[in-house]
Amino acid sequence: MVIDPPYLIFLGDVPDALAAKSGIGIVDWRPEWCIGQLRLEGCQADAGIPDLSIDEAKARGVKTMVVGAVNAGGVLPDHWIQPIVAALDAGLDVATGLHIRLASVPEIAEAAQRSGSKLHDVRFSDQKFATGKGSKRSGKRLLTVGTDCSVGKKYTVLALEKEMRERGMDADFRATGQTGVFISGRGVAIDAVAADFISGAVEWVSPAADASHWDLIEGQGSLFHPSFAGVSLGLLHGAQADAFIVCHEPTRTTMRGVSHALPSIREVIDMTIALGSRTNPDIRCTGIAVNTQKLAEDEARALLKQLAAEHGLPATDPIRFGVSELVDALRSI
Amino acid sequence: MVIDPPYLIFLGDVPDALAAKSGIGIVDWRPEWCIGQLRLEGCQADAGIPDLSIDEAKARGVKTMVVGAVNAGGVLPDHWIQPIVAALDAGLDVATGLHIRLASVPEIAEAAQRSGSKLHDVRFSDQKFATGKGSKRSGKRLLTVGTDCSVGKKYTVLALEKEMRERGMDADFRATGQTGVFISGRGVAIDAVAADFISGAVEWVSPAADASHWDLIEGQGSLFHPSFAGVSLGLLHGAQADAFIVCHEPTRTTMRGVSHALPSIREVIDMTIALGSRTNPDIRCTGIAVNTQKLAEDEARALLKQLAAEHGLPATDPIRFGVSELVDALRSI
Repeated sequence: MVIDPPYLIFLGDVPDALAAKSGIGIVDWRPEWCIGQLRLEGCQADAGIPDLSIDEAKARGVKTMVVGAVNAGGVLPDHWIQPIVAALDAGLDVATGLHIRLASVPEIAEAAQRSGSKLHDVRFSDQKFATGKGSKRSGKRLLTVGTDCSVGKKYTVLALEKEMRERGMDADFRATGQTGVFISGRGVAIDAVAADFISGAVEWVSPAADASHWDLIEGQGSLFHPSFAGVSLGLLHGAQADAFIVCHEPTRTTMRGVSHALPSIREVIDMTIALGSRTNPDIRCTGIAVNTQKLAEDEARALLKQLAAEHGLPATDPIRFGVSELVDALRSI
Repeated sequence: MVIDPPYLIFLGDVPDALAAKSGIGIVDWRPEWCIGQLRLEGCQADAGIPDLSIDEAKARGVKTMVVGAVNAGGVLPDHWIQPIVAALDAGLDVATGLHIRLASVPEIAEAAQRSGSKLHDVRFSDQKFATGKGSKRSGKRLLTVGTDCSVGKKYTVLALEKEMRERGMDADFRATGQTGVFISGRGVAIDAVAADFISGAVEWVSPAADASHWDLIEGQGSLFHPSFAGVSLGLLHGAQADAFIVCHEPTRTTMRGVSHALPSIREVIDMTIALGSRTNPDIRCTGIAVNTQKLAEDEARALLKQLAAEHGLPATDPIRFGVSELVDALRSI
């Protein structure tokens, strides 16, 4: 899936910033692609970029309107159809991560037909993948893995990409989730791929590259999550990671959506090596990334120091304290 | 997916028995459901049941024509369309495991519309599943796991079902692959489910049951297969197996479709327990099932004796020597 930037970020009339998380994430990581936002009356979210009409966006070179907000249930509210149709009629493509296909709404399908604009349903995968082959590809690969879902796997690889590029390293973020696909402009929402093709889709997302090139692959779920571990394992096998970073949220008591306890960071490291060595015998853990948002700064620093000592690895909060040490640790690979 | 028996097995004009493996498997395990076979001119496969025309099948009470053969590439040859249309026009449902949807062929879609008959595309999953919850369900569950794909996982649980029912035990085969769905009349081809819902689909396939009831769940792939391990892990988590049996083919040198070596039976046991204990801490290995088809009988017996001694577990070839010991081993659970 390839989505053409620059973007107009559609935020609808959602009641808070959380419902606009995807759109705000795109603005955070690809500000140069986000020309403006389109908000309907009553919208309580603000991505901090100019409010533009569709015509203004078009005049400034926008190629795609990205629906960067979700309302309750992930469905498309009726009153969002008109602005989507207007964007299509203006010649913009439209991309969403909704649970329904845009083309299943007759007015939208007709508008896309009229204008020849593209509809991107990131949550659906129409692409045919090969099954994973597991044979070694050239280039270097890093994967983020987690003690749970939603612990900062995407933000960690995005922070790494930024730092590595600033240092002149050849590195690309590789998206495996819907917000990641918007941020990258390409990729696959791996959780929507048919189960047989998980690792094959990851091989497609991260193809052979120059020997010194780094693919920074967005992880999903956790090998220990009873709902999603299959996705995580297919992703690990397809990624053939040379390096992985364990992501963790220290205040969580049960895994997201279920009543199971979180695994320890040590368990995640050991299991990731045990399973990942199947497609890359040299896989190793190179760091720990902790989302310390809910901790005071001194608590956060103390925790990171303790984890670093316990595991003999750099430990940081990528957003709060940067990823300098995590990048340093990749030098020897 | 629920498919109504009895069946007429359609074998087309395939060149050999291998191409009719699915149809022959249904006849092997559900002879009482298989009223007859429909073969086109030149068919080199024979399931050993009466050749019937569609009208004869209808007259004998057949409800569904199952396409039990595949031609090269899994596509639908043009000259198979006419008999499928005829079956629909006679009021039979039609079920296939082809790579295309029956309804994508206009003549077939129209015939189904005309007669009100059902089209079952076992390889496609239109059903909505919940994500796996991982919370313990009542009833007992056995899962077959493998050192590779295609090592007898389906046949082992089918042989167990037969033996257990003969002993008066309450046991049901639970299908997770397309031939299994035809044999069971229900189930899910788990490899076609969207990756996020693998374990949830298995929870649906094997719902809560009486405390003494056994679900015998068909395994898929291998935790060590670089193409399909994600499917195997989601299946393991969803199955919450109390008992598992390792299936193995001793003459294979590399895993199916890739160049990776097979894991040892010990590695499979250890990894299945390590991962499976996430949703059932009491998971244990209760036996080894070996497909000894390519070995002479004395070689086969010697190998099974050696494996039994090495692992302290019953080891048998379910087809050649029966599954009596494997069922005995379940008594203590």
